[in-house]
Amino acid sequence: MQILAPRHVIQTHPTVEVLENTCVLIDQDRIVQVGTREELTHAFPQADMVELPHQALMPGLINCHTHAAMNLLRGAADDLALHDWLQTRIWPLEGELADGEFVYDGAVLAAAEMLLGGTTTFNDMYFYPEQTVQAALDVGARVVAGITVIEFPTRYAAEPRQYIELGLQARDKYRDEPTVHWAVAPHAPYTVSDETFAHLATLAEELDLPIHCHLHETASEVSDAVSRHGERPFERFERLGLINERLLVVHGVHLSDRELACMAKAGSSLVHCPSSNLKLASGLAPTAKALAAGVNVVVGTDGAASNNKLDLWEEGRLASLLAKGSSGDATVWPAHRLIQSWTVDAARALGLENHIGQIAPGFLADLITVNIDLHPHQLPIHNLVSKLAYSGAARDVQDVWVNGRQVVRAQQLQGAAAQLLPEILRKTQRVWQTRVEKVGR
Amino acid sequence: MQILAPRHVIQTHPTVEVLENTCVLIDQDRIVQVGTREELTHAFPQADMVELPHQALMPGLINCHTHAAMNLLRGAADDLALHDWLQTRIWPLEGELADGEFVYDGAVLAAAEMLLGGTTTFNDMYFYPEQTVQAALDVGARVVAGITVIEFPTRYAAEPRQYIELGLQARDKYRDEPTVHWAVAPHAPYTVSDETFAHLATLAEELDLPIHCHLHETASEVSDAVSRHGERPFERFERLGLINERLLVVHGVHLSDRELACMAKAGSSLVHCPSSNLKLASGLAPTAKALAAGVNVVVGTDGAASNNKLDLWEEGRLASLLAKGSSGDATVWPAHRLIQSWTVDAARALGLENHIGQIAPGFLADLITVNIDLHPHQLPIHNLVSKLAYSGAARDVQDVWVNGRQVVRAQQLQGAAAQLLPEILRKTQRVWQTRVEKVGR
Repeated sequence: MQILAPRHVIQTHPTVEVLENTCVLIDQDRIVQVGTREELTHAFPQADMVELPHQALMPGLINCHTHAAMNLLRGAADDLALHDWLQTRIWPLEGELADGEFVYDGAVLAAAEMLLGGTTTFNDMYFYPEQTVQAALDVGARVVAGITVIEFPTRYAAEPRQYIELGLQARDKYRDEPTVHWAVAPHAPYTVSDETFAHLATLAEELDLPIHCHLHETASEVSDAVSRHGERPFERFERLGLINERLLVVHGVHLSDRELACMAKAGSSLVHCPSSNLKLASGLAPTAKALAAGVNVVVGTDGAASNNKLDLWEEGRLASLLAKGSSGDATVWPAHRLIQSWTVDAARALGLENHIGQIAPGFLADLITVNIDLHPHQLPIHNLVSKLAYSGAARDVQDVWVNGRQVVRAQQLQGAAAQLLPEILRKTQRVWQTRVEKVGR
Repeated sequence: MQILAPRHVIQTHPTVEVLENTCVLIDQDRIVQVGTREELTHAFPQADMVELPHQALMPGLINCHTHAAMNLLRGAADDLALHDWLQTRIWPLEGELADGEFVYDGAVLAAAEMLLGGTTTFNDMYFYPEQTVQAALDVGARVVAGITVIEFPTRYAAEPRQYIELGLQARDKYRDEPTVHWAVAPHAPYTVSDETFAHLATLAEELDLPIHCHLHETASEVSDAVSRHGERPFERFERLGLINERLLVVHGVHLSDRELACMAKAGSSLVHCPSSNLKLASGLAPTAKALAAGVNVVVGTDGAASNNKLDLWEEGRLASLLAKGSSGDATVWPAHRLIQSWTVDAARALGLENHIGQIAPGFLADLITVNIDLHPHQLPIHNLVSKLAYSGAARDVQDVWVNGRQVVRAQQLQGAAAQLLPEILRKTQRVWQTRVEKVGR
């Protein structure tokens, strides 16, 4: 039982507020009470005081779209359009290299990068999700793992039913882990059949899982579908009953006003991945329109092969700036809304809105502190919400708790992860860089 | 006399190359020789070896547009369009607060933020340039100070001739400082008269100075000029003889194809400030077209009140990603070109191409090291140029030399700056935050 005593507490719901003289009592995995120092020390005299005089305390950030394993491919394919990137570089590399070992090692790097930067939860889609889950557990992050499905065979699975079966087995294996959650994750409309989508929609309903899928990432994805099948992928999703509150539309670069209205009405979420969309020249997602339409718009980094960072501070700032610049309205996606996109809104997208994303009694203690002390890139702080949104940086994150356990202290991973990470980093230099280079030749 | 022995040296001209087994001999203010360890230790046995086994050595980054003093206004005006931002927030704040003390303290914070992040030179425009120069000297950065001119009176000066006179006096005062350079810096077409522009064009010619001016930042700047005076500001600049190789067009969000061709032919530079343009909803500069037209396109952060960071890594990455995303061509502004935009191209824009921006004999030793060791946000490094361009971060900068003097060592300012910075940071918390708040009310 601990009383966290930061300089400020960031409230994220129902409005974003900077609270003064506010402490947070955590016990086991949960936030028990939020109150003044006097209230909490009086009510819980046996609790340990954790003094955080130079820090703001806020909920951990939530990354709504990752391919964690792809950290091993960071920088292996740059300055290429999506089609070339995928077909001439990424798929051949994955075909050669993406086995369970690759996924575990890459996911360790990704989870560590994210945790050290204040991202406590990531929503992942990749082969061998069991390995990603084990990496998240070993590093200390919360994960929403994808029961990932693609129509064609890979070394991971031969056909859709096997992908699903393997995902469900992994889900069973980790069912007692409180930091492991699941989604169904069909890859994309152009790689998954109607039959498989229908099956996954049913599965999501039965198991109460989010549906995590790339959709309308590029103009050619949409136009190819129209010319081949006479319908836009979004229309196909409507026909298949996939446009509902479980759905996370990843990318959604090319969505019509009608489609945005439809998403808003259905309660679907748009996962905006601006760096990846820009870097692969997919375009600019209509986030200003989506926000105006009432869509739940959240942020993801995508994988390190197309970003090339898993830095939600930079990604969220970019999302907000792009929404303003592309709409011509500087008031769009303001700082306080971005704080919500990173936390409560992201939790809602993942169906975890009653568990993470807020500092309130009963919520899980997924918390971070941001140093707001004497550094020239920080000061002055006229407005802490603005500071976090527009000048926030991964390097400012000091401490991280996931499910009540402190996993980062003074910018260092704690526990077994502190030994694991250097091992995987050395192996990355020694082994993975060479393997990737060989395939590249 | 020192031999710097990094793991890699980044060559920036004529092509970007990652050099192995390459050391750099610096003596006094200059790079004397680049060669193998064996060559240099044999030729200069008396030189000290500086082992940098986990670092890449590259030229310091060059920030082509700043208002350093405005670091004190970071976060004081967010989520506002340019007009409101300027007229309801920034000008009233500046009117009340922007004296010499404000400029010095703000510029100390800005120069420190930039130096610690690997930016060794900044091209500044602000009132009291003498104070900015003194701050740069005290912190250890190279500065191109603006002889800043605006038509209307401020507490700094009463009318254009006085702005110019004060700027020239400051230039005289610091004429023996090798890290202080000058530009003429008329604020913008909408705040400077033809007569003043003509005077400054002559002055720039006589003194061989760059011309640093905001131009075509917003659509309304252009349309207002057309409706009031019947010509676009760019056309006015043509008429006044300002479109030449000395000119840095800052922002240039709204430039026609003809204007870009004209800039390319004249050898003018475009200073792209993407964060500021997006945040103030000014729009997206046509950088892909500008690059294709042969314009020298470089990057600036603008001031901290509209960015809200002075981080050239993030700004350059954003510039490259935006060029790809807005043009639909993922090959535009590739990683190697960005390295040049930060260094050789920026030096050229400032007329310093024979002095900074390259690691080559005879160039001034403005150098930085980037840690490329075991951190999860860094590895793997399949391609060091890509790593620097797309995953580079201020936090990775370890050491900085300006004019041969080591001003940052192990991420800390050296010498008197190590005392000065904490003083100014404390004063910022204690004094400036309160003063800004008072005006804000």
